[in-house]
Amino acid sequence: MNWPEKVTIKEVGPRDGLQNEQVIIPTQNKIDWIDQLSETGLSYIEVTSFVHPKWIPQLSDAVQVAKGIKRNPDITYAALVPNERGLEAALEGEIDEISVFMSSSETHNLKNINKSISDTLPILKKVIDGAANSGKTVRGYVSTVFGCPYEGEVSMEQVFRVCDQLFDYGISEVSLGDTIGVASPRQVASFLENAVKRYDLSRIALHFHDTRGMALANVLQALQYGVDTFDSSLGGLGGCPYAPGASGNVATDDLVHMLHNMGIQTGINQEKLIKAASMMQSCLEKPLPSHQMAVYNAQ
Amino acid sequence: MNWPEKVTIKEVGPRDGLQNEQVIIPTQNKIDWIDQLSETGLSYIEVTSFVHPKWIPQLSDAVQVAKGIKRNPDITYAALVPNERGLEAALEGEIDEISVFMSSSETHNLKNINKSISDTLPILKKVIDGAANSGKTVRGYVSTVFGCPYEGEVSMEQVFRVCDQLFDYGISEVSLGDTIGVASPRQVASFLENAVKRYDLSRIALHFHDTRGMALANVLQALQYGVDTFDSSLGGLGGCPYAPGASGNVATDDLVHMLHNMGIQTGINQEKLIKAASMMQSCLEKPLPSHQMAVYNAQ
Repeated sequence: MNWPEKVTIKEVGPRDGLQNEQVIIPTQNKIDWIDQLSETGLSYIEVTSFVHPKWIPQLSDAVQVAKGIKRNPDITYAALVPNERGLEAALEGEIDEISVFMSSSETHNLKNINKSISDTLPILKKVIDGAANSGKTVRGYVSTVFGCPYEGEVSMEQVFRVCDQLFDYGISEVSLGDTIGVASPRQVASFLENAVKRYDLSRIALHFHDTRGMALANVLQALQYGVDTFDSSLGGLGGCPYAPGASGNVATDDLVHMLHNMGIQTGINQEKLIKAASMMQSCLEKPLPSHQMAVYNAQ
Repeated sequence: MNWPEKVTIKEVGPRDGLQNEQVIIPTQNKIDWIDQLSETGLSYIEVTSFVHPKWIPQLSDAVQVAKGIKRNPDITYAALVPNERGLEAALEGEIDEISVFMSSSETHNLKNINKSISDTLPILKKVIDGAANSGKTVRGYVSTVFGCPYEGEVSMEQVFRVCDQLFDYGISEVSLGDTIGVASPRQVASFLENAVKRYDLSRIALHFHDTRGMALANVLQALQYGVDTFDSSLGGLGGCPYAPGASGNVATDDLVHMLHNMGIQTGINQEKLIKAASMMQSCLEKPLPSHQMAVYNAQ
């Protein structure tokens, strides 16, 4: 098997996870949680989002969170930024890496960002330029890569067009999102077959959702192509906005568990991860949906 | 990718699923459910178990169920049989194929069957001989192949020893069980690397549990080795006896969904499958844990 020896996991729970939770978590709890995540061996944590609080009330404390957390110099603390105003706040919050985001499908982009793809790109360019001027790297999230809730299948050409543009603007990595969890291992294989010819593997991350239960199988498929960077959310926090009750982001603890059992290093301590998941579970007063937490809760 | 074009799914929900459910399902509901399963395109259904009712009260109506269901001549109706007395009842119930079972680890066999492996084998031999005399094929379940809840790792040699013996007695197929859901894709790969040299692929089925979320990834790995027969339980019915609340058998609907999305045929109608899962969900008055049912329930 052609699996990488080491995988980098980018924890998106504090942002992608929490933004889908209805119960508002007090700022201090978020800070404590992120501080706990910083102790697990994770090298990358997306801590919040600087979108307007009107859109995501849960993350309206972005600046306080960014300023409140303890910084481990070995960890990259990232945050989502939609526009120049968000960038300003992110820079005030001393965020290490900026994430910009858009969809590869026109309709999802319109519904999510309220703009067409062609109107979104120049805005992201300004953020990317501004971040670069402040010495920050930028990550680009591209959503609906493997399917759109409104348009169905999205053509590879369309995905590549958006990625090309973002790379051209200067992002250092693209995170390819299976936003609604529809990708199958065959689709991942045929996508990566082409993507690895077009882009440097070290600049590709995959962002799987487990809505249909295929996330870990898709990770396995991607590993075969040498992909070694994956996004995940601790405990499977957040669920799926398109199917309440269904799974959302692949769970960090499930991903780490599988990788470690495959002899692939992550640098993460699974016990500390479960402890951190258990803390957030107490805050939310409901069981987190990951498989590891189900086993933990049964003990 | 070296995936088979067609996969056979053996539905074990009415036996392996139900035997782990606390709420006793009325016999008529079981019959109706199996009749509904017979309409989904499944070619194999394990309908019950002829173990002593003292051990599994849920399946004490084995003969009534076997006699009550409508038979589709294209479907194999199987049942679990622990000994000659069970075989007698199974023959009375006109079961098509007999399943015998044992563990590859000594301690699990002892705790589960109350006998050592060497004391179990002659009993199974009698069942296999008796079934053959009645013109019935026999399937052999071997448990704890990828790990034992009491002993931890189980050596491949030990698993092969048990399988060799059962094949020697005349079973037509072995179902290799990851009883506690600990197998990783690497373990599956290294096991199959050896197993496919030793046994005819057409005589190997894999029986994954999703306790740690790796079942579909393990299926994907097994597909690469050409394995084309898998056991599963509709809706993920049954859960895990070792971790209440955790996942049990891989869900038929999750498995079929992934295979179809990979362009692999199963002959099964996913819509009818979901309808049948939804019926059992109503009987149990709780959501079934599969991913497809979570999405269905959210709609």
